[in-house]
Amino acid sequence: METIRRIKIIDVLKREDYGSEVNVKGWVRTRRGSKSVHFIALNDGSTINNVQIVADADKFDDELIKLITTGACLSVTGELVQSVGSGQAVEIRAREIEVLGTCGSDYPMQKKGQSMEYMRTHAHMRLRTNTFGAVFRIRHNMAMAVHRYFHEHGFFYFHTPIITASDCEGAGQMFQVTTKNLYDLKKDDEGKIDYSDDFFGKTTSLTVSGQLEGELGATALGAIYTFGPTFRAENSNTPRHLAEFWMIEPEVAFNDIHDNMDLAEDFIKYCVRWALEHCQDDLAFLNKMIDKTLLERLNFVVENDFVRLPYTKGIEILEEAVKNGRKFEFPIYWGADLASEHERYLVEEYFKRPVILTDYPKEIKAFYMKMNDDGKTVRAMDVLFPQIGEIIGGSEREENYDKLMARIEELNIPMKDMWWYLDTRRFGTCPHSGFGLGFERLILFVTGMQNIRDVIPFPRTPKNAEF
Amino acid sequence: METIRRIKIIDVLKREDYGSEVNVKGWVRTRRGSKSVHFIALNDGSTINNVQIVADADKFDDELIKLITTGACLSVTGELVQSVGSGQAVEIRAREIEVLGTCGSDYPMQKKGQSMEYMRTHAHMRLRTNTFGAVFRIRHNMAMAVHRYFHEHGFFYFHTPIITASDCEGAGQMFQVTTKNLYDLKKDDEGKIDYSDDFFGKTTSLTVSGQLEGELGATALGAIYTFGPTFRAENSNTPRHLAEFWMIEPEVAFNDIHDNMDLAEDFIKYCVRWALEHCQDDLAFLNKMIDKTLLERLNFVVENDFVRLPYTKGIEILEEAVKNGRKFEFPIYWGADLASEHERYLVEEYFKRPVILTDYPKEIKAFYMKMNDDGKTVRAMDVLFPQIGEIIGGSEREENYDKLMARIEELNIPMKDMWWYLDTRRFGTCPHSGFGLGFERLILFVTGMQNIRDVIPFPRTPKNAEF
Repeated sequence: METIRRIKIIDVLKREDYGSEVNVKGWVRTRRGSKSVHFIALNDGSTINNVQIVADADKFDDELIKLITTGACLSVTGELVQSVGSGQAVEIRAREIEVLGTCGSDYPMQKKGQSMEYMRTHAHMRLRTNTFGAVFRIRHNMAMAVHRYFHEHGFFYFHTPIITASDCEGAGQMFQVTTKNLYDLKKDDEGKIDYSDDFFGKTTSLTVSGQLEGELGATALGAIYTFGPTFRAENSNTPRHLAEFWMIEPEVAFNDIHDNMDLAEDFIKYCVRWALEHCQDDLAFLNKMIDKTLLERLNFVVENDFVRLPYTKGIEILEEAVKNGRKFEFPIYWGADLASEHERYLVEEYFKRPVILTDYPKEIKAFYMKMNDDGKTVRAMDVLFPQIGEIIGGSEREENYDKLMARIEELNIPMKDMWWYLDTRRFGTCPHSGFGLGFERLILFVTGMQNIRDVIPFPRTPKNAEF
Repeated sequence: METIRRIKIIDVLKREDYGSEVNVKGWVRTRRGSKSVHFIALNDGSTINNVQIVADADKFDDELIKLITTGACLSVTGELVQSVGSGQAVEIRAREIEVLGTCGSDYPMQKKGQSMEYMRTHAHMRLRTNTFGAVFRIRHNMAMAVHRYFHEHGFFYFHTPIITASDCEGAGQMFQVTTKNLYDLKKDDEGKIDYSDDFFGKTTSLTVSGQLEGELGATALGAIYTFGPTFRAENSNTPRHLAEFWMIEPEVAFNDIHDNMDLAEDFIKYCVRWALEHCQDDLAFLNKMIDKTLLERLNFVVENDFVRLPYTKGIEILEEAVKNGRKFEFPIYWGADLASEHERYLVEEYFKRPVILTDYPKEIKAFYMKMNDDGKTVRAMDVLFPQIGEIIGGSEREENYDKLMARIEELNIPMKDMWWYLDTRRFGTCPHSGFGLGFERLILFVTGMQNIRDVIPFPRTPKNAEF
């Protein structure tokens, strides 16, 4: 082989210097042809588009051609020529073809149109398909948009711990982390397991949220965001739940609930706009193959203001709907936690726009949320999206030490390991707000995929930790 | 208070529209003054620089002034005026001061010059100091540089799993992850714990590296990188080890070991250059207070080519040094794993430049590294840095199925859960390479800090999972 430098397919497809010699490397999507000429669609993952390789039959051995099967890995050197029939502007007339890796007929991605369930059992190979290539290039782009947005707005990326000794947020069931030998568990006189010889000298778990530590960052650096894995050991086998997922949690000193809503709306529109600008080919593919209303929905979100509505008003609207004959599975009344059907009614039927619901009853929200003057509601906000339901949850935080402590005592929250959190309210406390966005929820929305297991490379769910 | 919009201190310090009314919010660093005027240094975390607030004594109550103590949180509205004595171009002549949060004399960051050990026990409050503010703003910037570099070079950010059922990489001791009730552990007839009712239906651990899954991404998307937490349950109480740390692992299809070295050198120089360009104030502070050779060292790295040297040559140089009377604690011979003293001799004394050491004996490197034709060495590369030692470790990977299997059998590596990894070599295999960079090692290098516990917000080490 000549040592001319490999060029990525996304770049070769943009070139117009016909007649130049180029080298591409990638995996065979299809090979077809006649007695005189073979057409090979080659893809290297840099784009959803293939480059067409044209190989004259009289220039290449039959033995070589036989090895060019779907999934095989090739290095191709040849001349860049204008294309008439490949769907692209250019194709490559092959001068040399080297098979870097053969691929037998037992290749799991051999057939087109396999079910999503089948794909999941081959998550290591589904990455090579059009659909999952598109999803994970978009996932990358959404992560870039997140970092870019916050960096441009003066936030600092803040790494909160994954292993934690505190468990008071109550956001969900936790995974225990231990180095103890489970075959030799020492117990004390009262029959309690002795954790003094565990790695951290006490019981530890995987974090369910970085928010509390994020507040430490915000009340020092001013504005921070987290973007890291979080964990829920809930036995939920649904298309919306993962045991391991990535979460983004901005937290801002001096922001009130209104600033917080502005931030959430501006941020999520920025992400969706980024996808529309940077992922055109992949979105066009998904719009065609997965969800024909995808592009319409994305454009709609960036072009329209979100509705901002107090929970109490939302309940009134839902009660009115019930009065007018609308049926819901779950009852609706002031104080009820909204079910997905209620959220979707408000978003998809009533307002036909994303809705930010605010000022929820304190009973259904977390202890750290700032109490309103009515003594009944807290400065919470949930951003509700079409199809997805709740995509963001956040609040202004209770910054008053006495009020926070009263709430903690009222709810009997175990604060023994939480002295550091309370210190933020003891030393130069300040108003502050923040929210959490489940990254995979965003990816679901932006790709039109239906199951959260299909927007993370290797999903962790009950009884499943493959790969 | 008027509702004029808060401006961040980093922005107010750039303004020149003297006479304008501005609002700033932040924490008091110091207050000093005379009978007629008070000077307050205010910081909001957006920059290491404070803005000076000038408060005429006759305009403000003594009772209010008494509350303006170190650590208190203020909202200040006043006139932007040109400064003569504050060290900055502007200061603010206060019209209104509101104390948002008081701060008593028990504020843990009251005194200057506290020890690093003391700071660690108050990791939630050390974030508010100059040193740690600088460190974590730089940490943010290094994360931005990482994402920016790979995005600009066509890599995709790829989230590999944190919870894993495979444990074959052998990179270190692992933490077990479980939802089992440790007070009621069922055992089978052979006395083995039954994990069928554990959350994932088998034993699982926290990942020590995303590389193997990263290879799945690279052989589909072409070029990926990971940037996520990794874990080692090693009982190492050193200034260089964390139980939980962040790792960056690029992996590139079609790259050989030389491409891999080019990538590592270009990437790390990009990061250091980013720090020099984007973190000038914070670096100047650290250069003055923490390490007076910091800026010199950073500039040196970006301006000089790294030495590329086979391990065998490195050993020769070290043996020659010993012959000439250089003393090392650990013996040096072909086949030995280099100790930190050896690496630092090559980098700091012999070459006085970063060194990429390549082609290590196979016995001291991982099973997946590509064997050289000599049958004795593998295509490994370690990037060695002044002060830090090994900052990057990587290799070209063995892409040949038979050779890889032979090595796996030779080393008795448990591959039962690794069928998916081998599939990359069975279906369209390709040459590929990658490396790992411990993010905190990079931050140590770029900040001049001495202890790895001081460059991550909340370090996890043996017996320590506070905050």
